[in-house]
Amino acid sequence: MVSVSIIGGTGYTGSELLRLLANHSKIEAIEHITSRKESGNSILKIHPHLKSMGYDNLCFEDIDLDKIDSDVVFCATPHGASMNIVPKLHEKGIKVIDLSGDYRFEDISMYEEWYNLKHTGKLNAVYGLPELHRELIKKADLIANPGCFPTGAILSIAPLVEKGIIEERVIFDSKTGVSGAGVEPSQTTHYPNVNENIKPYKITNHRHTPEIEKELNKLVEVSNKPVKVSFTPHLAPFTRGILTTAHTYLKENSLDITQAEIVEIYTKFYKKEHFVRVYDEEMVSLTGVRGSNFCDIAGFEIDRNGRLVMVSAIDNLVKGASGQAIQNMNIILGFDEKEGINYCGLKP
Amino acid sequence: MVSVSIIGGTGYTGSELLRLLANHSKIEAIEHITSRKESGNSILKIHPHLKSMGYDNLCFEDIDLDKIDSDVVFCATPHGASMNIVPKLHEKGIKVIDLSGDYRFEDISMYEEWYNLKHTGKLNAVYGLPELHRELIKKADLIANPGCFPTGAILSIAPLVEKGIIEERVIFDSKTGVSGAGVEPSQTTHYPNVNENIKPYKITNHRHTPEIEKELNKLVEVSNKPVKVSFTPHLAPFTRGILTTAHTYLKENSLDITQAEIVEIYTKFYKKEHFVRVYDEEMVSLTGVRGSNFCDIAGFEIDRNGRLVMVSAIDNLVKGASGQAIQNMNIILGFDEKEGINYCGLKP
Amino acid sequence: MVSVSIIGGTGYTGSELLRLLANHSKIEAIEHITSRKESGNSILKIHPHLKSMGYDNLCFEDIDLDKIDSDVVFCATPHGASMNIVPKLHEKGIKVIDLSGDYRFEDISMYEEWYNLKHTGKLNAVYGLPELHRELIKKADLIANPGCFPTGAILSIAPLVEKGIIEERVIFDSKTGVSGAGVEPSQTTHYPNVNENIKPYKITNHRHTPEIEKELNKLVEVSNKPVKVSFTPHLAPFTRGILTTAHTYLKENSLDITQAEIVEIYTKFYKKEHFVRVYDEEMVSLTGVRGSNFCDIAGFEIDRNGRLVMVSAIDNLVKGASGQAIQNMNIILGFDEKEGINYCGLKP
Amino acid sequence: MVSVSIIGGTGYTGSELLRLLANHSKIEAIEHITSRKESGNSILKIHPHLKSMGYDNLCFEDIDLDKIDSDVVFCATPHGASMNIVPKLHEKGIKVIDLSGDYRFEDISMYEEWYNLKHTGKLNAVYGLPELHRELIKKADLIANPGCFPTGAILSIAPLVEKGIIEERVIFDSKTGVSGAGVEPSQTTHYPNVNENIKPYKITNHRHTPEIEKELNKLVEVSNKPVKVSFTPHLAPFTRGILTTAHTYLKENSLDITQAEIVEIYTKFYKKEHFVRVYDEEMVSLTGVRGSNFCDIAGFEIDRNGRLVMVSAIDNLVKGASGQAIQNMNIILGFDEKEGINYCGLKP
Repeated sequence: MVSVSIIGGTGYTGSELLRLLANHSKIEAIEHITSRKESGNSILKIHPHLKSMGYDNLCFEDIDLDKIDSDVVFCATPHGASMNIVPKLHEKGIKVIDLSGDYRFEDISMYEEWYNLKHTGKLNAVYGLPELHRELIKKADLIANPGCFPTGAILSIAPLVEKGIIEERVIFDSKTGVSGAGVEPSQTTHYPNVNENIKPYKITNHRHTPEIEKELNKLVEVSNKPVKVSFTPHLAPFTRGILTTAHTYLKENSLDITQAEIVEIYTKFYKKEHFVRVYDEEMVSLTGVRGSNFCDIAGFEIDRNGRLVMVSAIDNLVKGASGQAIQNMNIILGFDEKEGINYCGLKP
Repeated sequence: MVSVSIIGGTGYTGSELLRLLANHSKIEAIEHITSRKESGNSILKIHPHLKSMGYDNLCFEDIDLDKIDSDVVFCATPHGASMNIVPKLHEKGIKVIDLSGDYRFEDISMYEEWYNLKHTGKLNAVYGLPELHRELIKKADLIANPGCFPTGAILSIAPLVEKGIIEERVIFDSKTGVSGAGVEPSQTTHYPNVNENIKPYKITNHRHTPEIEKELNKLVEVSNKPVKVSFTPHLAPFTRGILTTAHTYLKENSLDITQAEIVEIYTKFYKKEHFVRVYDEEMVSLTGVRGSNFCDIAGFEIDRNGRLVMVSAIDNLVKGASGQAIQNMNIILGFDEKEGINYCGLKP
Repeated sequence: MVSVSIIGGTGYTGSELLRLLANHSKIEAIEHITSRKESGNSILKIHPHLKSMGYDNLCFEDIDLDKIDSDVVFCATPHGASMNIVPKLHEKGIKVIDLSGDYRFEDISMYEEWYNLKHTGKLNAVYGLPELHRELIKKADLIANPGCFPTGAILSIAPLVEKGIIEERVIFDSKTGVSGAGVEPSQTTHYPNVNENIKPYKITNHRHTPEIEKELNKLVEVSNKPVKVSFTPHLAPFTRGILTTAHTYLKENSLDITQAEIVEIYTKFYKKEHFVRVYDEEMVSLTGVRGSNFCDIAGFEIDRNGRLVMVSAIDNLVKGASGQAIQNMNIILGFDEKEGINYCGLKP
Repeated sequence: MVSVSIIGGTGYTGSELLRLLANHSKIEAIEHITSRKESGNSILKIHPHLKSMGYDNLCFEDIDLDKIDSDVVFCATPHGASMNIVPKLHEKGIKVIDLSGDYRFEDISMYEEWYNLKHTGKLNAVYGLPELHRELIKKADLIANPGCFPTGAILSIAPLVEKGIIEERVIFDSKTGVSGAGVEPSQTTHYPNVNENIKPYKITNHRHTPEIEKELNKLVEVSNKPVKVSFTPHLAPFTRGILTTAHTYLKENSLDITQAEIVEIYTKFYKKEHFVRVYDEEMVSLTGVRGSNFCDIAGFEIDRNGRLVMVSAIDNLVKGASGQAIQNMNIILGFDEKEGINYCGLKP
């Protein structure tokens, strides 16, 4: 039994951590949950749906890193805020899972360029995508929990990149639900602007682009050309979920590969992975992963032009954030990796 | 550890039973799950979201009551079908939880009138609303699991009816999600007909009306007039959930009651009930109970005309069907009543 | 050919006025359209969907009542703002159609009580519901354009109230789309809070309540008791439209009336009204009036308890606001009442 | 003043023709509107939203080509049905606008391959995309009204293809509303399957692919390589609209082109086109074209990899079907091209 703390508990990722941890058999208590603005208030004021789930006496506190003595701390803080908090926890020897983008880049200059922020300094973080880095995660003290888009995008074509059968140019066309924009209202999330609509945004310059690219390139053999990722997200009229459509082209010397062989590559690549499910086109759906930690992958079709299409579906708040964070915690602490997150999608 | 069977496993209630039972610690196995049409097929063909949840080898079978030897059988069969199945299971001594309307009426003639069906004969069933009938449920062999609308409607004003402070006329104006219409497509559930719309249906003659009325009248003291229920449902553009707005009028001699006193009546009435939560107006929401077995109640306001308004929110497929069925099973078998269904709403 | 001006042009009612006036054959020009915040900017910055509709050179201006010389001015200003603008336009002899609540009450004290604002003083305004007050509107200089909820609520039972066959207590349970909350984002309109949800608000104290009541009571004969209106609105997950379910009880001496007779009463009452359509239950829908000035009415069913249910559907931004404003303008200026607003619903 | 007939009047394209023609100043009457199934019934039975729009006495008739004597006939018939009707009308000298795919291919073998149907024989049809073929349309007797996806896809990159600055491989990732699937209910359009979801379908083999490709290749100069179109549609949770994201790569010798120059190319290409509007990223939206005949185009951004992204938005039932059909009729008959279809989007 362990205790955990959550830095930044009023947002959707904080709320999802609480929702999932409420049924995690190894969690003794939420030691601290912080919020500057809501300090002193019951968490039920902000998260009323958690009533009667074991948190009725839990209150937000102002952040005080000295007081924190948990086995694991989740930083559900915004980009730029985490890097002022994580080092202190790290020093105290506390294991940290950071849900922001602050420690996702091995190369700080890349972070500074795409996030337009000065970084406080590199730490020895592991990119927390268990399907690719489980062995490193086991030994890590600091996990950089992956971005929501990168999780779905990377998993959708990792087996092909490793296999070296697709051209270097890859296009991800993603469709995300509105919860990805966070709890704060804005014109972007104003219901009449979202409903009956779908909009592209940051068409060519979303900062998840280099995160996807650098992770995929870890899979590329030296003899092959690195992947060049192009990424365009769209805001779609649903609350949860990211569907990513990956458009790739087969290399000329791989054009005779069949759909069945592609499926075989995926099945083999993910054969030990509980949280990746391989489907056919008709079966993949966002409701199938809603509220769940699964990443479902389908597609595998090849068209007249040698284009090979894959589609992945995740819940952006679970496999794309808090569920994956708990998966990482389970690995670090030696628990069953599925503990507390082994739910199927809430369908319909 | 027990084994259960599900008669009629292709619909939403069957699917929800499987979803919830997958994480129920006392269920050893789904012994049988039946479907005439899908007999021999994997349940994953119809419920692909259940992949990797322990059912990958489970197949639908044709119904064969002789073969069934489970501790509990859930009948997720349509109205009119259950009454041809339940008696045989009952005879074999198997405990049955019937999710249809077939055994909800003590008075068969009322069933025959409102369902326009000839009944095969009365059995000793208990109306499975644990908050009102827990003691009877504990000893029951056959549970008539309540209708979705009645669950939310009854719980929304039961404390007032028992207290005898409202007039006999009660109006329930309910708003239900589309999953209540089942898995079969029709003009009613055709997306362009539902989206950006809300429609009343069976404005004055929905068969849940007498079910609500006869249950509420069990709470009325002999000296008081029986409740007269008027009920109008609306089909609303969301998938899950029923919001019921109960419009009642205070009796003339109760007009000096305050909102705080009403809240106190509810708090007291439900103080031992884990699955009923009392909220204020701003806090009640369908997302707060989505995928959950909670019934949230709010409102308690009194207007210039002595009208007292209550609002209840449930997930029609969980507290309104499969979750409540499992709650009943837990009670019958002596398990912790919360086992396998203790989840908060999937919010947002 | 006339020229019009719009005071307060950045909101949804301003936008709808422009959308509809673009195809109004009698409008020569929008003389002025005001916005403090967007003064100097093209209206296309705020309303890009109006591009190529004749407004490409139209810019917002700061408000300057001295400059205004239009035949008609629409005040699409918030409650409390109109009463500081309208008197000056009125003095100049300009016909004004005010879309706020400021002039809807003959009795200023009622306004001050429900709006919690000090009023600047009564003017000779006509309540602009053409179906009830056409003759007065023809001669009016100042129109108080009705509220969105009152429009649908009043029209839904006006024939019954006039006929005197229902009891004095009336309950309106309304479901409104989110555009009714305006263009400014808030937690209330944040997509994840609205989607897959439906919420009651101002359960007993919405300020449209007395507006509905005083208008209905104009129809009550002296010998009859005045109507007592109870009203509960709900925020529903669609953008446009209000569905109002009116729950009334037949008087004891009218209990033998048939549904066909009720329909006859409505058909007769509205026989000269182009913008009121009488339907049966299955046919009424919000999409049927989306973008349209029609008010569709259905229901007319009587239940076991003598409850008589009516349902009305309007587009809150058209018949509930800007369309009705243009209808009023057409009447005042002697144009064909249908000019510029004779569209059916955008269905599906 | 002319009279028109509609073959196949119960679907969404038939309904939209009626909606738009109701306010078309040059239409004297709908001479015939056919439906086998609804023959003899009022059109209001199927299209109740059209009540009071001038069609209250219009009934569906069984198809009888001999009786038809209209100036123009719209064939709103399914693929495969039109080719059995159009030749007879054509022989009678009636101008026909066919909304099916039957006459869209100059090369019948391509039709037969992709539609898997035997064709009855080629006719002298013009592909009815006015922005590309206006001069041919003016003189045409038979118009093949374009497919919904092709309309948005072709217009989104036609200027680039003509200019010859992009590589031959083009990827269209489209998101369509559910009305594109027609009026008949199915699992695909069942509300709980669509809502809170987005699904790809016919990932690599949609039959609009060759239609897009052959039209774009009409714009390619002989010296350049033909375009190779890859197309993947997605079913998205809204009723109307298609957003198409076009992913293209600049040719190596065009990599120094700027976004401003791209915008200039589009502005010039479409400068005489009323129904194409050029926007920037933030402004494009489906609600901006809802119910409207506009095609809005935005994007024009170039990423690190030389990828150039364009986005187009149309209403699939208007510019993607019935509105464009009326636009074609206006051109053929010498009316103002905007007559009856000059509406902006219903936003919000």
